Amino acid sequence: MLEKIKRVLIGQPLPNEVEKSEKYGVLWGLPILSSDAISSIGYAGQEMLYALLPAVGILAFEKIPILSLAIIVLLFILMISYSQTIDNYPNGGGAFIVAKDNLGVLAGIIAGAALSVDYILTVAVSISSGVDQIVTAISVLRPYKLEICLLLVLLLMIGNLRGIRESSRIFGIPAYAFMLAIVSLIIAGFFKLKTGYIPPEPKINYPIHPVTMILLLKAFGSGCTALTGVEAVANAVPNFKEPATKHAKMVLMLLSLIIFILFGGTSLLATYYRVNPEKGAMLVLMAQEVFGKTFMYYFVAATTFIILVFAANTAFAGFPMLVAVMAKEEFVPRQLSMKGDRLSYSNGIIILSLISALLIVIFKGNVSALIGLYAIGVFISFTLSQSGMFVRWLKHKGNSWHIKAFINGFGALTTFVVVIIIAITKFKEGAWIVVLLIPVLVLAMVKVKLHYIAVADQLRITPADKELLDIEHNIYRNRVIVPIESLNKASVRALRFARTISDNVIAFNVSISEEQAKKLQERYKMLNCSIPLVIRYSPYRKIIEPLLEYIKSEEYNYQKGDIITVIIPKFTAPKWWQKLLHNHTWLFIEKELLKEKHIVVSVMPLQLKDDEIVLKNKKQSLWNVLEKD
Amino acid sequence: MLEKIKRVLIGQPLPNEVEKSEKYGVLWGLPILSSDAISSIGYAGQEMLYALLPAVGILAFEKIPILSLAIIVLLFILMISYSQTIDNYPNGGGAFIVAKDNLGVLAGIIAGAALSVDYILTVAVSISSGVDQIVTAISVLRPYKLEICLLLVLLLMIGNLRGIRESSRIFGIPAYAFMLAIVSLIIAGFFKLKTGYIPPEPKINYPIHPVTMILLLKAFGSGCTALTGVEAVANAVPNFKEPATKHAKMVLMLLSLIIFILFGGTSLLATYYRVNPEKGAMLVLMAQEVFGKTFMYYFVAATTFIILVFAANTAFAGFPMLVAVMAKEEFVPRQLSMKGDRLSYSNGIIILSLISALLIVIFKGNVSALIGLYAIGVFISFTLSQSGMFVRWLKHKGNSWHIKAFINGFGALTTFVVVIIIAITKFKEGAWIVVLLIPVLVLAMVKVKLHYIAVADQLRITPADKELLDIEHNIYRNRVIVPIESLNKASVRALRFARTISDNVIAFNVSISEEQAKKLQERYKMLNCSIPLVIRYSPYRKIIEPLLEYIKSEEYNYQKGDIITVIIPKFTAPKWWQKLLHNHTWLFIEKELLKEKHIVVSVMPLQLKDDEIVLKNKKQSLWNVLEKD
Repeated sequence: MLEKIKRVLIGQPLPNEVEKSEKYGVLWGLPILSSDAISSIGYAGQEMLYALLPAVGILAFEKIPILSLAIIVLLFILMISYSQTIDNYPNGGGAFIVAKDNLGVLAGIIAGAALSVDYILTVAVSISSGVDQIVTAISVLRPYKLEICLLLVLLLMIGNLRGIRESSRIFGIPAYAFMLAIVSLIIAGFFKLKTGYIPPEPKINYPIHPVTMILLLKAFGSGCTALTGVEAVANAVPNFKEPATKHAKMVLMLLSLIIFILFGGTSLLATYYRVNPEKGAMLVLMAQEVFGKTFMYYFVAATTFIILVFAANTAFAGFPMLVAVMAKEEFVPRQLSMKGDRLSYSNGIIILSLISALLIVIFKGNVSALIGLYAIGVFISFTLSQSGMFVRWLKHKGNSWHIKAFINGFGALTTFVVVIIIAITKFKEGAWIVVLLIPVLVLAMVKVKLHYIAVADQLRITPADKELLDIEHNIYRNRVIVPIESLNKASVRALRFARTISDNVIAFNVSISEEQAKKLQERYKMLNCSIPLVIRYSPYRKIIEPLLEYIKSEEYNYQKGDIITVIIPKFTAPKWWQKLLHNHTWLFIEKELLKEKHIVVSVMPLQLKDDEIVLKNKKQSLWNVLEKD
Repeated sequence: MLEKIKRVLIGQPLPNEVEKSEKYGVLWGLPILSSDAISSIGYAGQEMLYALLPAVGILAFEKIPILSLAIIVLLFILMISYSQTIDNYPNGGGAFIVAKDNLGVLAGIIAGAALSVDYILTVAVSISSGVDQIVTAISVLRPYKLEICLLLVLLLMIGNLRGIRESSRIFGIPAYAFMLAIVSLIIAGFFKLKTGYIPPEPKINYPIHPVTMILLLKAFGSGCTALTGVEAVANAVPNFKEPATKHAKMVLMLLSLIIFILFGGTSLLATYYRVNPEKGAMLVLMAQEVFGKTFMYYFVAATTFIILVFAANTAFAGFPMLVAVMAKEEFVPRQLSMKGDRLSYSNGIIILSLISALLIVIFKGNVSALIGLYAIGVFISFTLSQSGMFVRWLKHKGNSWHIKAFINGFGALTTFVVVIIIAITKFKEGAWIVVLLIPVLVLAMVKVKLHYIAVADQLRITPADKELLDIEHNIYRNRVIVPIESLNKASVRALRFARTISDNVIAFNVSISEEQAKKLQERYKMLNCSIPLVIRYSPYRKIIEPLLEYIKSEEYNYQKGDIITVIIPKFTAPKWWQKLLHNHTWLFIEKELLKEKHIVVSVMPLQLKDDEIVLKNKKQSLWNVLEKD
């Protein structure tokens, strides 16, 4: 049943061979990997305004162009820096790998932890902002904002569990549509101004105050959320068709160009149209001024909504892959490195969905509340990644390494300054959560890694293990215990199997009363069998403790190195509701016994036939069967 | 950890021997078993008024005495009827047993289903009404009504999981306190009237209309909720100290007397004081009139609150025992007949708590909404139980059986009429749910019973099974498969064990790539071992399907009747978080393989040592270990 639902939702399993063809070129790679960065136009500008408006009033609009310019400069520094990373890490140059390679394990783990946090926030922020766009355009949906957010996370999860290729098809076209919409908005907006249109005076209730540096930096911190997409491209190099690095660099360049146009254009437009972002999503409100409630207005709202939702998809591509890389290096549970039926990293996708949905619920889908936590993680990883590249050039040298080192070093310095700015100006607004969380995650990852090292150490076969390897001449003494509750076909079958695998077998019973014990002993005599029956009386109605006590008793005479096999029968009923009718004590017993070193638990299935077939053989009406039993 | 919490909440396990001393006499049996019936004074009268007020206005108060009288008459009929039941069923004469014994299985199941539903409603109604009392007296608590209800259900659950004896101590005294409070209220109320006090005119907004028969019957139906406690006494006979039947009958008689005084007295008082039940709980409002806001006012409110909460406890004594009886007869899952650590029927207690809490949430703790579902179940079982007793007298005769048969027959007839009245007058208000639910439950129980019959049939050893019983000369051919992922100490250990239990062993590996397969083959040669290594290539990264395919292949040459043992290693990590780091695929593989008829799954534990100890042996700093790995 569950299996069927799973198939309908995520499709039939795909074999490994399909994997290669699931990769993308520039045409599809660009929309998938850039949507995070370009979609931030939907909130970055608006959040810059939010940071300034209450403090300085209408003056806020004047400061937008200079802030946007600073962010675009930062973007180009990052682009050039990351191009160099892509060249050097054709297998995926996420901050985790680059920092670990060049700065050591700790730096790698910190980068990995920081990026993981950021991917989760990308989903939460993008979905929340996306829904903001749509409820600005269609206000009847406003009461259902939270529900829509959660539904979207669910859809993204299902879509991504289905696999990469279908992702690119679903998520490609709307990204281009969004670019078209925003470019149209910018052109039409400036054209309208040119032809003499004067936008209405904004109704801002805050009084005008002088702009301070600290306020500007705070607004700049909000605006930096626009740059969270760059990492995704370098991280996803192996997802590109060959030649992968070339395709990836092309996408990175195109991406920067597009952001420059869209972010710069809308920011400039905002200084003229001066809409009040407290009334709703800024882009949608500007589109209303420029286009009126025409088709283009709805086109802007719809594509912005869709691109933001799909931006979250960047994280769905990036997070599971990052986690899988860390899992392969054993810093997080290894299960996370395994691909699911459809060749997607199912576990990572599910974890991302759950945590981001939780964040949306906690922060009620409020972008401004989430923005305080955002960006700091990604700028920490930018810093580490580029410091790593800087150190790499110093070590490995190579063609014109001075320039390359300068580029990455400058990138590292710039992004480090941004980290400090965000950490200070946004500390109270949520950055503290991330500042606390990252060391906790790092500690956990170190612990996980040490555990795996310890396990490998215990499992490793060394030349000293000669005796161990001599399987033919060094077998165990195997002793078997068959716990029986009563004598029936299942217990007889278990006894027979016990006799098959060993000559040293006992049957073991725990009785609640002596009467019950006697009855069993008499029936046991029926068997033609030399297996002794040991009965223990338990006042606590339990089986495990008496059994373990017996094994430890002198009577049983356990010798070090012996293996004891305990055989547990298990019924398999044909229908789900019938399974509920049988004790699941076998599972509990198995779990408890497996805590002991030298006990092997053998579960012996007994398949029950269909009730109706069995009862039909009784050749009585069901009613008679019921009355007579 | 969980185990510790459990111990603090429900106490240390008790051995079977303690069981006898956990029983009660009249002094403690009365409060435990009567609280359901006497507590209904807290809502029965009030709900009668509710049924009439909107339709007939202030006239409603005039009709209360006659309705109360009818209910008291019904009570005495039931008392006499049930005394006869107790005499004949010293091991607990619940409707289920009596109906099943005398009217057949179907009647028994119907009675059982009806009673189960009613016990659940007893908890929901009593808790909701109890909290009504307290929020009437302390109105600041009103917004937290639902939370308080759920907290109380939780406390009752924990208390009952602790066991019977402590229940009687905790729940005894307040019942007597309640009786004292209500008797004081009645005496003081009438004394005040006698000394010339004239209660204020009630402010009822409904206009006066003539009273119709159908309205009276509807109100009567609400009032019948007062009688749901009687069944509990007969059902709980084995919980009494010896002589149990005598004690039980004494409790039943005292109970009826107490209800007569309390219910009759408060009903009569209500016709004079005429408080508006829409303003809050009627008893508390009357106490305010009679005592003012003195100690006695709070005493009435508090004891009514407490007795109602403890009334729910009657169901906690009755429901798990009823379910256990049905479980012993295999109409419900057998697990429900097992006593927990503290000699209480843990599963039944937990189920009761969960479902009643759910009902409280669905109906928002509104007594009037729940009352529509209430009482019909118990009157169905009353009818079946007494019809059963009637038939019993006809069959078995005995001393003055004519009179006894008449008593039970009359009881059956009366209660049957009540069932019809409630079903019709309350149908729309919720009785339909119960009318629908009972047949569904009955069908389910029949299905369960038939399944257990079919299972027993398949397990039963008959004289024809001679060959089966000859364990010594009729062993299986045991073939062993050891799935290995790589070659390490765990897999070598599994191979050694395999060699111990059989000469017919293969090692089986599923490789994702040929490269991986080759690497394993080379390492495998290291072993001094004749066990062949079979490698399969799986495009789907799965182990189970290729393994099953291999078993079915001609190459493996499976012979009917062979047992195949599959050995799965399982790591046991010392700390909980470490357990999360290991694949739980072994559990999944076990589950899947056990679906096959002839595969025994042997799980071989490998206990991992503490990380720190292992890493200390490496004689390196942890940091070096991390960097070098």
